[in-house]
Parts: sequence; structure tokens; C-alpha cells
Amino acid sequence: MTKKNEKENSLMDKIVSLAKRRGFIFPSSEIYGGFASCYDYGPLGVELKNNVKNLWWQEMIRTQNNIVGLDSAILMSPKIWQASGHLTAGFADELVECKECHKRFRKDHLEEESKTNCPDCGGALNEPRKFNLMMKTFVGPVEDEANITYLRAETCQGIYVNFANVLDSTRVKIPFGIAQIGKAFRNEITPGHFTFRTREFEQMEMQFFIKPHEADKWFNCWKEARMKWYLNLGLKKENLRFKEVAKKDLAHYAKRAVDIEYHFPEPMGWREIEGIHNRGDWDLSTHAKHSGKDLSYFDQDSKEKYIPWIIETSAGADRATLVFLVNAYQVVLGGRTTTTESTKEAEVVLKFDKKLAPIKIAVLPLVKNKEKVVKLTQKIFELLKAKYLTHYDEAGSIGRRYRRQDEIGTPYCLTVDFESLENQDVTVRDRDTMKQKRVKIGELVDYFKEKL
Amino acid sequence: MTKKNEKENSLMDKIVSLAKRRGFIFPSSEIYGGFASCYDYGPLGVELKNNVKNLWWQEMIRTQNNIVGLDSAILMSPKIWQASGHLTAGFADELVECKECHKRFRKDHLEEESKTNCPDCGGALNEPRKFNLMMKTFVGPVEDEANITYLRAETCQGIYVNFANVLDSTRVKIPFGIAQIGKAFRNEITPGHFTFRTREFEQMEMQFFIKPHEADKWFNCWKEARMKWYLNLGLKKENLRFKEVAKKDLAHYAKRAVDIEYHFPEPMGWREIEGIHNRGDWDLSTHAKHSGKDLSYFDQDSKEKYIPWIIETSAGADRATLVFLVNAYQVVLGGRTTTTESTKEAEVVLKFDKKLAPIKIAVLPLVKNKEKVVKLTQKIFELLKAKYLTHYDEAGSIGRRYRRQDEIGTPYCLTVDFESLENQDVTVRDRDTMKQKRVKIGELVDYFKEKL
Repeated sequence: MTKKNEKENSLMDKIVSLAKRRGFIFPSSEIYGGFASCYDYGPLGVELKNNVKNLWWQEMIRTQNNIVGLDSAILMSPKIWQASGHLTAGFADELVECKECHKRFRKDHLEEESKTNCPDCGGALNEPRKFNLMMKTFVGPVEDEANITYLRAETCQGIYVNFANVLDSTRVKIPFGIAQIGKAFRNEITPGHFTFRTREFEQMEMQFFIKPHEADKWFNCWKEARMKWYLNLGLKKENLRFKEVAKKDLAHYAKRAVDIEYHFPEPMGWREIEGIHNRGDWDLSTHAKHSGKDLSYFDQDSKEKYIPWIIETSAGADRATLVFLVNAYQVVLGGRTTTTESTKEAEVVLKFDKKLAPIKIAVLPLVKNKEKVVKLTQKIFELLKAKYLTHYDEAGSIGRRYRRQDEIGTPYCLTVDFESLENQDVTVRDRDTMKQKRVKIGELVDYFKEKL
Repeated sequence: MTKKNEKENSLMDKIVSLAKRRGFIFPSSEIYGGFASCYDYGPLGVELKNNVKNLWWQEMIRTQNNIVGLDSAILMSPKIWQASGHLTAGFADELVECKECHKRFRKDHLEEESKTNCPDCGGALNEPRKFNLMMKTFVGPVEDEANITYLRAETCQGIYVNFANVLDSTRVKIPFGIAQIGKAFRNEITPGHFTFRTREFEQMEMQFFIKPHEADKWFNCWKEARMKWYLNLGLKKENLRFKEVAKKDLAHYAKRAVDIEYHFPEPMGWREIEGIHNRGDWDLSTHAKHSGKDLSYFDQDSKEKYIPWIIETSAGADRATLVFLVNAYQVVLGGRTTTTESTKEAEVVLKFDKKLAPIKIAVLPLVKNKEKVVKLTQKIFELLKAKYLTHYDEAGSIGRRYRRQDEIGTPYCLTVDFESLENQDVTVRDRDTMKQKRVKIGELVDYFKEKL
């Protein structure tokens, strides 16, 4: 491992550690020893992730005129997964089993590492077998074949099977989209890299229904729009790129696929954070065939009837949350806080876009033992917390408190001091410019309305 | 069945039918014949449900100073369900099986209807057996006992097992709460009443951690606060009541429980929409014992160490959505629209609280064949849709369009007519007062800011 890798490796570890220490992300079931690469979002994490989801929803539903939302159930008829190909060859990993210790491994991973024997005990390996990624459950009183179903492996199937319902209940016309945020489950053999690949994950998918011959136009439109979304929310341009998926690697239903990749700290490197797919008419045709329901569209203007093609944008809410966390993480060597303590210590700042920051404002009394200062601070806190997620903190030196807020990415710290009592103003410190400004208490609401 | 019942029975059917026709709620997997009493939220339903969830979250996290959020995984260690008692006697229904046709029924339901034989074929019944409500799945490459886990049956367990994580990562002090919204799953034998009882459902739970001797105070405080929440969002007072759960019916962990009940149309009648529970120290003590982790709390002020007691408020996002839909539904006999068509037809209005309404404003050109009117309407639409979920509709007479918006509960319809071109003003119609008012286009943003 090179020196660079070692350093960046520990960077990812530091982010994971901060995430736990400050309540962004906890390992699930931790007091019972953890479970299956699942994670829980803590008090700050749930706000960050909700901000990501709300911003995506706003972009899809509010910014566009022709996208509507949907929230379909996780449990669906198994016939859907039969039709979509998820229960057959299309959605399986090849596994090999060790003849000695019976552990199983992904064939492609062993090949990557040129291993011909069991990586654990060195035993001989069996022939590869397909292993389906769908997670099975039983619905109804009897646990038998007839009652098997699966936790959905992707949210988009819920959109396809509701295509006719949406057409019948709204006034949408092609081109139009259906957007959905929701959990999906895949029994990954090798989950890992923190919340990047987990067995339970949340998708943000939008299916855009179009005239077949307009596929290229809309594909390019959505490809650019999705990249712009990440850039507008502060992802560094040099860490983003498009990757065209090679023809031979396309899923059986895909006409074209482009991934948006982000460069994570090593050893992760470039990884997909979203996919834009031209799925052709595969999904609606397949469900029409299997369900016997006509899923074609009648175009009132051109009097044509056709099966719409689909351009899909498929992002992960957990991946997006992780990428915004990683992208925000910065280490500064001293000088950020006004503390008289050692100013050359490494200080962490999460430079979230303001829209993403979990806590928008911290309200701090300069001292906690002067009743008048504390009372005024609490009055300001009550005023602001109705509008913005606001922290009140009186514990420790003001420098330490600034540092605590920097570490969770709070854009504004507001300090109430002795002068505030006389002049009815406070100090507002900007996380990014580090500038401090006196603002009249009566003008605070308008001040933050403009800033946030 | 009385005449009153017949009428109200069909009322529930009408609501279900409207919910499907206008895109609030669809039966899941419908093109494949439906599935397991699951439902999907359509374009309007997802907005309504999101409004319910956001308002609950705001009430918990923003209005209070001492409640933080959490979003734990659906998949958890099975040890949690072993400890909580969900895998043993506490969470099972007694079922009887017919010896002839092998169908299964809930014992308590057969008893209620005094049935001693199979309700389907009349055959003799077996002795009752316990049937566990947890939904099983397998995590990892091998489908065996060692890899079994369960979809969570309640979100609160994710809160209890993260109690120490939240204490360690935040500055919360008792009394404080942890709030969570998320899916849970129960293999109900008899789901039903539309989305009231489903196998997949979404909970909104808040666990409030307190000093043991303050349980009564906080129980009453939360009981009142939760009732107030429903009243403030427009539920009719006469359809709400508290129901004290009798000592003999309390769950094994509960010291006291009060349900908030709503009177649904017959045949449903009074039904629980939320429970307030004093759970004592049962949850934290049990998980401390089973996990070996100290889950006690050290009180910095009083220097006491104790296991906190818990007051829980447990609501359903689907139930709340249903109750707001049912409560909003009103039928008016004519006179609401300015149409010259038969004015004695029954017209449906969904009188949602404005905060709950999926669409806030409808923007309508009086006529669709005058380019100037249409252009001005679209300009106004673009202006408003950035701030509020807004519909543009130009199809059909203005009366029909008002009626369409009434039927989905849109609080404001804005009509652009010929006068608008000259005077730069529009007509705003209020759903509830039916009053129409001319408002200058330049003042619309401020007008709606005050109203919404």
C-alpha cells in the first residue's frame, strides 16, 4: 500500500468515526454485536438524510411541471418479480463454496484476486452456483411455497405496475415522470464500505415516460440535470465524472446506461452514485405481457398508440447522504476558533451546503453564569427554532462550542454577550468565511431568511 | 343492519373509490390481481402522507427543545426480538385450523361470532395454536436457521437499542425524547378496513425518557399534547375520544395505556389511531439484561443513577393519513360551483386543513383558446409552483375545474380572465368560504404567504 493510500484510508475511517461520535450514523443493533452491515441514522444523520430526500423530491416534483410522486409498498406480488426477471438468471451472483469449511464467496471477487482455493482455510472450491439476491419472506398464516414473497429489490417496479393507475387518476401527458423514494433490499454477499453498499438501502428513482424516438434527447437532458443537482449541492467538480457503461456490460433491458461516479477516499476510489438508463419499452411491455393488461399510451395530439420508452434516473438516498458527508469533510490546522488553547490542533469542519446542514444555527450565550445573558439567549433560541433547526449550547468555552458546531457543519453560530444586553445585537459567525458580524436582534429573522 | 349503517357503509366505499380515482391510494400490485392487503400511495396520496409525516416530525423535533430524531434500519439482530419478547408468547395470535379444508382462523374472531365450526366449509376445528406475527427473512448467502431474521414489528425497538448511542453523541438530558418514522411489518391474519390494518405499515413513534417518579405527569402531558395535535389539524372533536385500556388488557410491559380513538364511518366505528403508553423501565432493563450493556442514566444534577422510564406515543402514518382523508370528506348538494349545469348534483369536497392539502393552489385560465389568457396563467403558475405545490388545469368548463379541485381538497383556485389582462388581477376562490376575491398579480406571493 502506498503512503497516499494509507493516509486516505485513514480519512475514511475518520469520517466513519465522526459519524458515530456526533450522531450521524451508528452501526445497527450495536449493543447486540451489530447486524448484517445495517446502519441506523442518528439525530444529525436523520436530518441530513431527510434534507437529501426533500431536496431530491423538490427538484423532481416542484421544479418540473410534469413529474408526479408515488409511494408504493415494499411487499408486492411475487408475479411482479417473476415478470421482471428478478427471480431468474438476471438478478443473481455466482458463488463458489469451499468443500472443507463450506463458506461461500463471490466468483468474480475470487477471480479479481486470482484465488483458486478458499481464502479462509485454503480448501478446494466447488463449481460456481447462482445465488439469488432477492430477500424472501412469507405472507399469511401458513409458511409454505404459496405464501412466499420478496422484499422489493428496486423501487422502480412499483412505478411500472402503477403506470395505468397514474394515467387514469391524473392529467399527465407524455413526456412525464413518476418519482419515488423508498427502501429496497438485496441480499448482497459482500456489503461494505460503510453505508455505500448495504443489504437494506433507500432509493430515489424517477421513471420518465417518453415517445420512443425521443430517447436520446431525454437521456442527455436527464444526464446533465442529475449531474447539475450534485454540483449545485456542493460536490467538488474534480471528484465527479460520467462513466458510459460498455455495451457488453449493459443489463439485458438497457439500451444505454451512464453512471455518475464520485471519487471517494481510497481504497474506494471512483464509485457509482447514480445511474441514468434508457430502458426502452422493456418494462411496460413485459408487465403488459405477464399481467394481460394493456399498458400502451394513446397520444391525444398525434392520435398514436404506443408503449412509452423509459429514461430512468436511479440514485441512492444512503449513497447521496454518504457522498455529501465525505465531500463536506475538511481538516484545518488550527486558527478557526477564537480559543486560546493550542491553535495548531487539527480542526474538523463539515462544509455542507447550507440546504443540507442538519443544524442551521447554534445559539450560544458567551457565559453560562450570567442570568441576563442566558435568558436573552434562550429568548433568541425560541424565536429561531420555530423556523430553523437550531441548537442551544452553553457548555464549555466559546471556542470549544464553535469547534463542536464546525464539526457537524452548522453554517451559523450566534453568540450573545454583555454588549448584547445594552445594544440588542449579537455576533453571527459564518462557518465558511469565518467572518463575525454584529446583527440587531430585531433583524435576525430577516437576516437568516436571506442567508438560509 | 339499520338504515344509518347502510348509508355510512357506502360512505366508506365512496372514500375508497375516490382515493383510487383521484390518485390518493391504489391497491398494490393491482394489475397482477392485488396482493396481501397492501396499498400504494398515488401522486396525491404521497403528498398527503408526506404532509402528515412532516407535520408530526415538526411537532416533535421543532416545537420541543428536547426531542431528537432517529432512523434505524428495518433489519435488526434477531437477538433484539428475542429480548423484547416478540418471538415468544407476547406477540402471537391463537389460530385454529379446519380439519377438512385446512383454512386457519383467529380464535378470538370465531369466539366473537360464536362459531364452533369452520366458517367456510363447516368442518370440525383443531385445537388452537399460537401463530407468530413477525415476518421472517434470511440474510446472508445460506438460507438456514443461523441466517434468519425478522422485519421489525415496531420501530420503537430501534430507539431502545440506540439509547446509549444517542446519549453518547448528543447533549440530551432527561427528560428527553427520541422520535422515529418508519415502516414496520406484522403478518396479520385479518388485515382490513382499507389502509387501517395492513401487514406493511408506517409508524410515527416517540419514546420519552423520564425520571421514574415523574411518569404520571409526563403521561398526562403527552396524552393531552397528542389529542391537541389531531384537533389542531382539523379532526372533528365529536369524533375523537380517549379510551383508558383496562388493567387486565394491558401488554405485559405496560403500566398504563390510553388510546386516542376516532369514530370512522360504520361498520368501522370507534378505532384506535394512537396509543400513549407508560412502559416503565421494562424496555431498557430488558435490553440491558440481554445485551450485557449498562443502559442506566447518570443524572448530573441530582447525582443519581437509574434506568429511565419511558412514556411512548405510538401513531400510524397510514392510519393518520386515512383519518384525515375520512374526516375531510364532505358531500354538498349543489351550489358550490358556478357552473350552469344541474346545481343539485352531489358535490364532494375534501376539507383538509390547509397544511395537509396535497395541492395548495390551482391556477386556471378562464378559457383555453385565448393565447394571452393562457400565457398569463402559465406565468403565474411558474411564479407560484416554486413555493407551493400548484396545479395548472385548462380542461373543461371553469365549474368542472372548480369541482375537480374541491374533490381533492385544494384550498385555493385562481382564475385568470379577460379582465386580468387589463387590470393585472385574478380571482381567488376560497374552498371553504366559497368567497371569490380579486387579487393583484404582484401581490399574489404575499397573499398566499399569509394564507398558507
